[in-house]
Amino acid sequence: MTSTRVLTGITTTGTPHLGNYVGAIRPAIAASQDESVQSYYFLADLHALIKASDPKRVQQSRLEIAATWLALGLDTDNAIFYRQSDIHETTELAWMLSCVCAKGLMNRAHAYKAAVTDNEETGSPDPDRGITMGLFSYPVLMAADILLFNANRVPVGRDQVQHIEMARDMAGRFNHVYKGNYFTLPEAVVDERVQTLNGLDGRKMSKSYDNTIPLFSSEKKLLKLIRKIKTNSLEPGEPKDPETCTLFQIYSAFASESEEQAMRGRYAEGIGWGDAKNAVFEHLNAQLEGPREEYERLLQDPGHIESVLQKGAERARGEANVLLERLRPAVGLGRFV
Amino acid sequence: MTSTRVLTGITTTGTPHLGNYVGAIRPAIAASQDESVQSYYFLADLHALIKASDPKRVQQSRLEIAATWLALGLDTDNAIFYRQSDIHETTELAWMLSCVCAKGLMNRAHAYKAAVTDNEETGSPDPDRGITMGLFSYPVLMAADILLFNANRVPVGRDQVQHIEMARDMAGRFNHVYKGNYFTLPEAVVDERVQTLNGLDGRKMSKSYDNTIPLFSSEKKLLKLIRKIKTNSLEPGEPKDPETCTLFQIYSAFASESEEQAMRGRYAEGIGWGDAKNAVFEHLNAQLEGPREEYERLLQDPGHIESVLQKGAERARGEANVLLERLRPAVGLGRFV
Repeated sequence: MTSTRVLTGITTTGTPHLGNYVGAIRPAIAASQDESVQSYYFLADLHALIKASDPKRVQQSRLEIAATWLALGLDTDNAIFYRQSDIHETTELAWMLSCVCAKGLMNRAHAYKAAVTDNEETGSPDPDRGITMGLFSYPVLMAADILLFNANRVPVGRDQVQHIEMARDMAGRFNHVYKGNYFTLPEAVVDERVQTLNGLDGRKMSKSYDNTIPLFSSEKKLLKLIRKIKTNSLEPGEPKDPETCTLFQIYSAFASESEEQAMRGRYAEGIGWGDAKNAVFEHLNAQLEGPREEYERLLQDPGHIESVLQKGAERARGEANVLLERLRPAVGLGRFV
Repeated sequence: MTSTRVLTGITTTGTPHLGNYVGAIRPAIAASQDESVQSYYFLADLHALIKASDPKRVQQSRLEIAATWLALGLDTDNAIFYRQSDIHETTELAWMLSCVCAKGLMNRAHAYKAAVTDNEETGSPDPDRGITMGLFSYPVLMAADILLFNANRVPVGRDQVQHIEMARDMAGRFNHVYKGNYFTLPEAVVDERVQTLNGLDGRKMSKSYDNTIPLFSSEKKLLKLIRKIKTNSLEPGEPKDPETCTLFQIYSAFASESEEQAMRGRYAEGIGWGDAKNAVFEHLNAQLEGPREEYERLLQDPGHIESVLQKGAERARGEANVLLERLRPAVGLGRFV
């Protein structure tokens, strides 16, 4: 095993947008090519069941997201790329962890507490109204995802740091109860420089604001959406401020330093919004059309995606089984001979 | 599939005593020979982790209990006999059920509530003190045990009826959310005539009272323990009341009707306690010595027990997989091709 093991879970609900790409997918794919670490990337489809009870949506989202990552060049020879639901060892480990995990820890999980607060604010007589055991015990499953591969680095957003701390807690408690060094304590890696993009209305690009630009929009749709980005009322010829401009921010996320400088110059010269939007579209489209074609091709070939994921599952399960063959006897569940 | 499927979980903590045998094991083994139903018997060793964090104890208990049931003639050709921890599909199903199971349902589980009450009574500032997620989510795992085989009858004690109702709730909810008839709603079967035995001190025989007679005590130990059974101070020659006598109750549990009548006669005639105890010992020992020898032999041959359990696991997993191959696509986790 390589000493550094980095694990990244990919939520399989919804359709990736430019903000997801710039903030999460692009850096993760770059990291997958780093041969000095062992990377694990998984489609978190068991987690998806917590939020999505429409099987068609879960299935379609898994397929689109797998196609997206592959189309963008995820290195599946180096990184291990798999579907969480193919790794049956995950839920087995989750049960073992449940038995050393204090319920009080889950009571304090942000997502659960937020749901309780919602209920209290709407005056529900039951603070747990609409909360499933899936939502409540989600951090145990996430700990199993991480500890199954003894990942020591988990790149996450700020909102997920608590879950990594919980995984550390369970790992430490298990090592203590069963008197052994079974688990590495994982560390959250929060990239403070993570790029966020604003959406059509100038607020942060997010599905919940309905202001997104889907990553693999068709050419026509991409142009249409870029034209909808909110700008101010300055006329062509008037100098424009790139710093407060969503359009410029999006352009920059896809531009080299010199390209960015050049665009700054055009803003100062008073480029008209229509021209600026056309330029941004051309620039993004040039970068996205190759992956978009590959994405469309992959969606037509689910058998290929399946075989890539099966290969990943085989590698992942191979490793998971080595660990579980150690854990089962450690807790008293080994074979008799 | 036979239309009637009966599932019995066997707790793998502790050593079986005469009370367990008469109340649970003997009727279950008789039922295993009924070819008109499909019976499932499993060692509930994942559940054992909730209470026992000593791996040696869990392992030893599993072995002893498997040996006990086999020595007593469990029909493993007819019934399917397996270890819960060998059926990896159980925890996978448990996760699916978690996502349709209201947390509020678990809040109302007796075992959890009792633990909270204990904390409140001892003045703990944290009502969840010492409570693990294993204890809290135990009814979800139990529902998975049952629903994995679509068992329609589950023989249980009164204290377990609530868990079966919870399993019905999850089954119904899953069928509703995923619009299909995936699960049979299981029914609790409570045998009101279940025989209980009193222990050495005259209270109900129970490990928690430390008043048990282990089922496979050595001959010497069995005699010693029977001699310790509390009796009154009536002298030989004085007539004795069988109805209030623990010794008589234990004898009856192992006697035919005519044998019981004969012993009643000897009580009326004023049999001395020493003679009565010897008679009870002789009678029990005659019935237990065969199985005890077989039990001791089996304990020396863990490889045989393992192979019986592996055969059972293979049959059980065969059935479990048929169900999961239906459930995975139903929730959106099927393969892409």
